Amino acid sequence: MNHNVLIEIEDRKGLIHDITGVFSRQGWNIITNNEFVDLNAKRFFMRSEIKGDGPADLLERELQQLLPTATRLNVYQQRKKDIVILATKEAHCLGDLLLRNYEGKLNANIKAVFANHEDLRPLVEKFEIPFTAIPHKNKAREAHETLVLNLVEPYKPEYLVLAKYMLILTPQFVQAYPNRIINIHHSFLPAFIGANPYRQAWERGVKIIGATSHFVNDGLDDGPIIAQKITQVDHTHGWREMAEAGREAEKAALAEALKWVFEDRVFVMGNRTVILD
Amino acid sequence: MNHNVLIEIEDRKGLIHDITGVFSRQGWNIITNNEFVDLNAKRFFMRSEIKGDGPADLLERELQQLLPTATRLNVYQQRKKDIVILATKEAHCLGDLLLRNYEGKLNANIKAVFANHEDLRPLVEKFEIPFTAIPHKNKAREAHETLVLNLVEPYKPEYLVLAKYMLILTPQFVQAYPNRIINIHHSFLPAFIGANPYRQAWERGVKIIGATSHFVNDGLDDGPIIAQKITQVDHTHGWREMAEAGREAEKAALAEALKWVFEDRVFVMGNRTVILD
Amino acid sequence: MNHNVLIEIEDRKGLIHDITGVFSRQGWNIITNNEFVDLNAKRFFMRSEIKGDGPADLLERELQQLLPTATRLNVYQQRKKDIVILATKEAHCLGDLLLRNYEGKLNANIKAVFANHEDLRPLVEKFEIPFTAIPHKNKAREAHETLVLNLVEPYKPEYLVLAKYMLILTPQFVQAYPNRIINIHHSFLPAFIGANPYRQAWERGVKIIGATSHFVNDGLDDGPIIAQKITQVDHTHGWREMAEAGREAEKAALAEALKWVFEDRVFVMGNRTVILD
Amino acid sequence: MNHNVLIEIEDRKGLIHDITGVFSRQGWNIITNNEFVDLNAKRFFMRSEIKGDGPADLLERELQQLLPTATRLNVYQQRKKDIVILATKEAHCLGDLLLRNYEGKLNANIKAVFANHEDLRPLVEKFEIPFTAIPHKNKAREAHETLVLNLVEPYKPEYLVLAKYMLILTPQFVQAYPNRIINIHHSFLPAFIGANPYRQAWERGVKIIGATSHFVNDGLDDGPIIAQKITQVDHTHGWREMAEAGREAEKAALAEALKWVFEDRVFVMGNRTVILD
Repeated sequence: MNHNVLIEIEDRKGLIHDITGVFSRQGWNIITNNEFVDLNAKRFFMRSEIKGDGPADLLERELQQLLPTATRLNVYQQRKKDIVILATKEAHCLGDLLLRNYEGKLNANIKAVFANHEDLRPLVEKFEIPFTAIPHKNKAREAHETLVLNLVEPYKPEYLVLAKYMLILTPQFVQAYPNRIINIHHSFLPAFIGANPYRQAWERGVKIIGATSHFVNDGLDDGPIIAQKITQVDHTHGWREMAEAGREAEKAALAEALKWVFEDRVFVMGNRTVILD
Repeated sequence: MNHNVLIEIEDRKGLIHDITGVFSRQGWNIITNNEFVDLNAKRFFMRSEIKGDGPADLLERELQQLLPTATRLNVYQQRKKDIVILATKEAHCLGDLLLRNYEGKLNANIKAVFANHEDLRPLVEKFEIPFTAIPHKNKAREAHETLVLNLVEPYKPEYLVLAKYMLILTPQFVQAYPNRIINIHHSFLPAFIGANPYRQAWERGVKIIGATSHFVNDGLDDGPIIAQKITQVDHTHGWREMAEAGREAEKAALAEALKWVFEDRVFVMGNRTVILD
Repeated sequence: MNHNVLIEIEDRKGLIHDITGVFSRQGWNIITNNEFVDLNAKRFFMRSEIKGDGPADLLERELQQLLPTATRLNVYQQRKKDIVILATKEAHCLGDLLLRNYEGKLNANIKAVFANHEDLRPLVEKFEIPFTAIPHKNKAREAHETLVLNLVEPYKPEYLVLAKYMLILTPQFVQAYPNRIINIHHSFLPAFIGANPYRQAWERGVKIIGATSHFVNDGLDDGPIIAQKITQVDHTHGWREMAEAGREAEKAALAEALKWVFEDRVFVMGNRTVILD
Repeated sequence: MNHNVLIEIEDRKGLIHDITGVFSRQGWNIITNNEFVDLNAKRFFMRSEIKGDGPADLLERELQQLLPTATRLNVYQQRKKDIVILATKEAHCLGDLLLRNYEGKLNANIKAVFANHEDLRPLVEKFEIPFTAIPHKNKAREAHETLVLNLVEPYKPEYLVLAKYMLILTPQFVQAYPNRIINIHHSFLPAFIGANPYRQAWERGVKIIGATSHFVNDGLDDGPIIAQKITQVDHTHGWREMAEAGREAEKAALAEALKWVFEDRVFVMGNRTVILD
């Protein structure tokens, strides 16, 4: 029965020794251990996979006594995350996630899919996952978002995944799931923020296009980056061909980001991510 | 005795047939042939390597009669380009070019190196290439540039290569060598234009950094992109480590761009390049 | 109504001029044109996308009169290929193709899926594509293959795609679809031919694993290579983790190979492929 | 004054706690810490960068008392390695190392270069490094190797780097520098062992070529792999063009391997490397 331990705290001397001392005393053995210290910010990050017989809550309690100022401290049994996906019309990222979920490789359970159009219903329902279309046409943004939030809430998702959800979220929406909304943006951020990044990329004449998966915060296409992938293009690509070619990088960046997030390898520090893999 | 034929002209029916007809009639055989038609812009680009006995100027003349509206039409024997390099203090891009030149792999002759500091003199002089330092301190930008232009001019370079030349060129300078100045910028353009792109990249928390080799035109870090290369980074990279890691992509992007430019594979169309490889 | 022209013939002077002359005379305009001459083998390859009003069979006939020794000469309207997929138990490559097919992005119609196990039936049937399991247990290889061939034949597939089909085909089977069977092998061929390449890779301690999509010929994991993709691994990967990580490269290599094959960009020359993209 | 601690030992419970306890008691602070446990082999690997005031030999002594069965246990101040390079005629890998050395970026001091031909003398001597040619023609292999070993020995190199040294070493030679000879092989090992791997790659029709940097042991092109890099090729590459294109991957793989080795990040476990970066 493997457990994870996640710790974030201000750095000080002897942390590893003290923490692993608690593991030892309570009879837990380390399977893998990753630490990172940000020397500028003086922050210490640690992720351990441990194995043992003792009760996990006892371990957590003793660690909390040891580290009362920790901004993150969790001891828990490894398990799949519950997630909800938001999408619009494009099937490639969503389909990729549905397939991984079907194969049991996503490390998550897709509880439901919501979209602002009906197009993706047949695909989602093939996989026997609840699909709800909430059209945004003729609705105020806030009204639409309230509707989405209310219908999502009963699924109690640990993460919301925006699989090419083409609406911009308000800060109100984002604050309901802080650092728990993961987006895939179809450019190599911070280049080409906003609408039709492939057209922007084509106009600039780039030779490489990219995709960026990131946590969503208040700014447009802003937020801590988790994974980026690229694809080479050349003069034979118009912007539509770039969009076509870019689909592979979009799927790959989102899948990689989700793998790391769902394995609890991603810590957020300001606008950056620390990924303990 | 291989020759190159380079053609750019408004597209119309039958161009390839007509052009290759001239080749045939004059006894030239095609070794390799690349064409591209930009369907939006209705521009036709062609690069042929041909072999034959006939005089090349006769071929060029007949092609000119056939294609009087061509904006580019050259027939010439393949040969190395004469170039001048501008640098500042960093040795890695310059050193890479000096080595390729020494091995006879650059497809160019480095006639001279100019820098705004003395630091690179010992390296350049190892390779018995003239080095001139033209300090920019306490000089007006225009005065400094005039000095550089005047001292570069006698070498009659076909291309100027900015191998981490950390001064911004004025439009006056650029216009002296239109589409003949090649820069390496240490970011994945158009992200992180301007000063210290690695610091900008670190602040944004990117997971991939890049380098861009491009023709210089009037704008800062603008101009048609020729080659881009990337390097993966993670949270363990501060901006200095990013700069260190990025050196490899800088060398690679510049070397690739120069290979294509010096083989006359690069056509400029507005702010984009067509690379017939 | 775009048509493709595919030509392979012994190289000689004036071929492009002669061929494009036929295009011109019959009123066809070239959209894109790619040629390659293998100078050692003296073979000429050409793929043109053309547009025109004239009847395609007339064009083909005149080209045949011009090029009576061509080993390949086709003029035809662009259209999707009919294919049949063979698989075993793994869902990732098959699922990827089913999704692309569903989105209309595969440039092919999957007419049927055959497997030697039942596992993949639910996935295939979600997409309303006929699935047939033909167990190989307790059957002689030839008897099993005859069964497969007989059941595949009515679908008249232009290509057979082996999407992780874990049985080795006999020459008899292969000869029924010469250069029309495309396999994905889970290694960077020619390294790690045969069983469990990931285990072999792990034992050798490689730092990069790969996947190879190739036409199947008589030898095991032999045959002309179409596309290869790689993934980085390190000491934390056991062979099972390598297999997991390698799935992405497998999907990518197979998808890229099929894109090129189904667009008729791939010519086979001995044990190599010429890909006119 | 940063120090490194390198430890390899049979895995057991509490190792990290015990080791970091010694650090703490002796007043050393951890800057970075990497561990890896091979669960199959039950081996524990650790590399720490630590900072402190205490004497390093005291720390080493106490760690040895704690870990008497450690197969590797070093505490030492970080410093550049002394190396000797062996080469033949090709300049690109050697030149790349000379440049990095010149820039102070190699993390090593090149004490001398030996070659079996004279060709590289002018390049090496530009950088004021001793060059010795020891021709192998008309010499028995053992006699030649004895000569090389005798002339190398006075430089007391910690590592020998084979920068495209085209002679095969005997086990006698290799045993003089166990796991201290680093080679760059111009293929994606284990594919294309032996002579002219680019020609072999061309004949097989691969779409990706590679380079492998590895420790040399008794077998030909065998030994634990440290780094691998790849380059894409296509049908336009004959084997000479592949060799040309492959030079970049060769330089990159060797440079990356040396970076890790010279920073003492590489542990050898059987035929595999554990790289704690």
